[in-house]
Amino acid sequence: MLRTRLTEAFGLRHPVISAPMALAAGGRLAAAVSRAGGLGMIGGGYADPDWTAREFAEAGNEGIGCGFITWSLARNPEALEIALSRAPRALFLSFGDPAPFAPAIEAAGVPLICQVQTLADAKAALDAGASVLVAQGSEAGGHGERRATMTLVPEVADLLARRAPEVLLCAAGGIADGRGLAAALSLGADGAVIGTRFWASEEALAAPGLKQAALEATGDDTLRTRTVDVVRGRDWPDRFDIRVIRNAFTDRWHGDLAGLKAQAGEVAEAWGKAAAAGDATLANPIVGEATGLLHDLPPAAEILERLIAETEAVLARTAALRA
Amino acid sequence: MLRTRLTEAFGLRHPVISAPMALAAGGRLAAAVSRAGGLGMIGGGYADPDWTAREFAEAGNEGIGCGFITWSLARNPEALEIALSRAPRALFLSFGDPAPFAPAIEAAGVPLICQVQTLADAKAALDAGASVLVAQGSEAGGHGERRATMTLVPEVADLLARRAPEVLLCAAGGIADGRGLAAALSLGADGAVIGTRFWASEEALAAPGLKQAALEATGDDTLRTRTVDVVRGRDWPDRFDIRVIRNAFTDRWHGDLAGLKAQAGEVAEAWGKAAAAGDATLANPIVGEATGLLHDLPPAAEILERLIAETEAVLARTAALRA
Repeated sequence: MLRTRLTEAFGLRHPVISAPMALAAGGRLAAAVSRAGGLGMIGGGYADPDWTAREFAEAGNEGIGCGFITWSLARNPEALEIALSRAPRALFLSFGDPAPFAPAIEAAGVPLICQVQTLADAKAALDAGASVLVAQGSEAGGHGERRATMTLVPEVADLLARRAPEVLLCAAGGIADGRGLAAALSLGADGAVIGTRFWASEEALAAPGLKQAALEATGDDTLRTRTVDVVRGRDWPDRFDIRVIRNAFTDRWHGDLAGLKAQAGEVAEAWGKAAAAGDATLANPIVGEATGLLHDLPPAAEILERLIAETEAVLARTAALRA
Repeated sequence: MLRTRLTEAFGLRHPVISAPMALAAGGRLAAAVSRAGGLGMIGGGYADPDWTAREFAEAGNEGIGCGFITWSLARNPEALEIALSRAPRALFLSFGDPAPFAPAIEAAGVPLICQVQTLADAKAALDAGASVLVAQGSEAGGHGERRATMTLVPEVADLLARRAPEVLLCAAGGIADGRGLAAALSLGADGAVIGTRFWASEEALAAPGLKQAALEATGDDTLRTRTVDVVRGRDWPDRFDIRVIRNAFTDRWHGDLAGLKAQAGEVAEAWGKAAAAGDATLANPIVGEATGLLHDLPPAAEILERLIAETEAVLARTAALRA
């Protein structure tokens, strides 16, 4: 058992939030994480109201939270109403200005968690009234920016100490085992947001072939790219790209976005079919550098149990280094 | 006091190596770090024999190590002879294949420390017979590659556990205070290689104006770029770029390398003068994301003393999270 400000504030047994991975983190994964003592999140992602409603239903009576891609939520604000009507334990926003949505979230009495990629983002999230900041490093899977977890977390911690010591801080990016969680706590975080490790779980909504490819990859095999958003027709702001496992698709198009755009229609159809079928030679598993630390696809509860036992062992080991 | 395999192997009081920062880590800084209980390194960098000899002399009788940029050492191998003739406590190679130099280093009875940027590099360094691997993340200042400290360190630790458990591991990149060192130890490192924090020390060979600019920057203000090598006429292999603090020079040329190459002569002269004069509006301070954690320019001994006290406090704090 680890007790931090995050476990106290949210009534958790473990200082762990599962990342609201768009389309991959459904109600079954979120409920499993919450049931096991973490804070489970569904990945409302691009804010499809039907997907959001269905996955809340899938979680049953388990208390979970919900995340959205902020710039996409601005185009589909009704998804926020659906999420807030389900009494989520938290609302998680990333990739865009949270300010327009903060009043409705506050009015619903739901804690606002803002994921930030830069120190500048962190200041904007404080201005918007976030209860929890998540400092996300570039090593994370999926969308992100340039800063690394190792420096962004302590720099945001220093900002909070000066400006808003009551606001909690979580680390995201590169955390897949007890070494990573212990490191996050050392850096000044109250807990961790974990994506890749839960993506490679029994419950995550990704095709088995893609999960298998993540187990076989090393951290050297991932890259940040725009190709995957171009082929999926996702209109992301320039500052964000997506970390995935490289394959023949990114090898061909990463250096030729214009060429990909010119052929996007036919490539998109093939890429989409490959993603559904789990063909990782064409569709890219959306995981971070921590994919190199994965060796199996356990249920989420087992992931959490192991993670906490490992973290406790690491903290005991490092404490004993003091002579 | 912290006791790790690194302190035992090298007879150190602290598990800290100062990074052999090319041209910035001279004999005075290296000697100060060693005298204070770490392992001080001079930054032989591009392997200029005269610079190397002079900075060894500057360190006096204090036992220090020496680092070289491997691909540049291949062009100036006599610098290695000079370094080995000074009985260095370790020889540190980064950025290139260490294998051609390993036999001479081993024959001299000097421990070989290999800094690696990828898991593939780590395997090559083991094949070359390194005694210590340094897993360097992209958040580091100066030259580097893409992987982040947070994932590269545990992934290399797992490789060592399988293939060469007797080889030591240090973390580099983003470590500037006790939170960072505690995180590095949590991730499985036996110690840390610290650059940026020692670059912003009294002893480092950088102009005062550049050091001041590093104190004022946040981690958001750094970027990895090729412009600084182009303007200095340094012929780096494609896979490596350099992290610096952005300014008007990188704003102008980062997106237009061809244009910079076309005008390199005149820009180079102005950039070089600005570097010597400490004008950070043109010349870029060569520091990492951890620049956002710096607030002063103390002597190296004070940096080490604080770092260890902070680390001990962090390890005590995190150990107490176990309920």
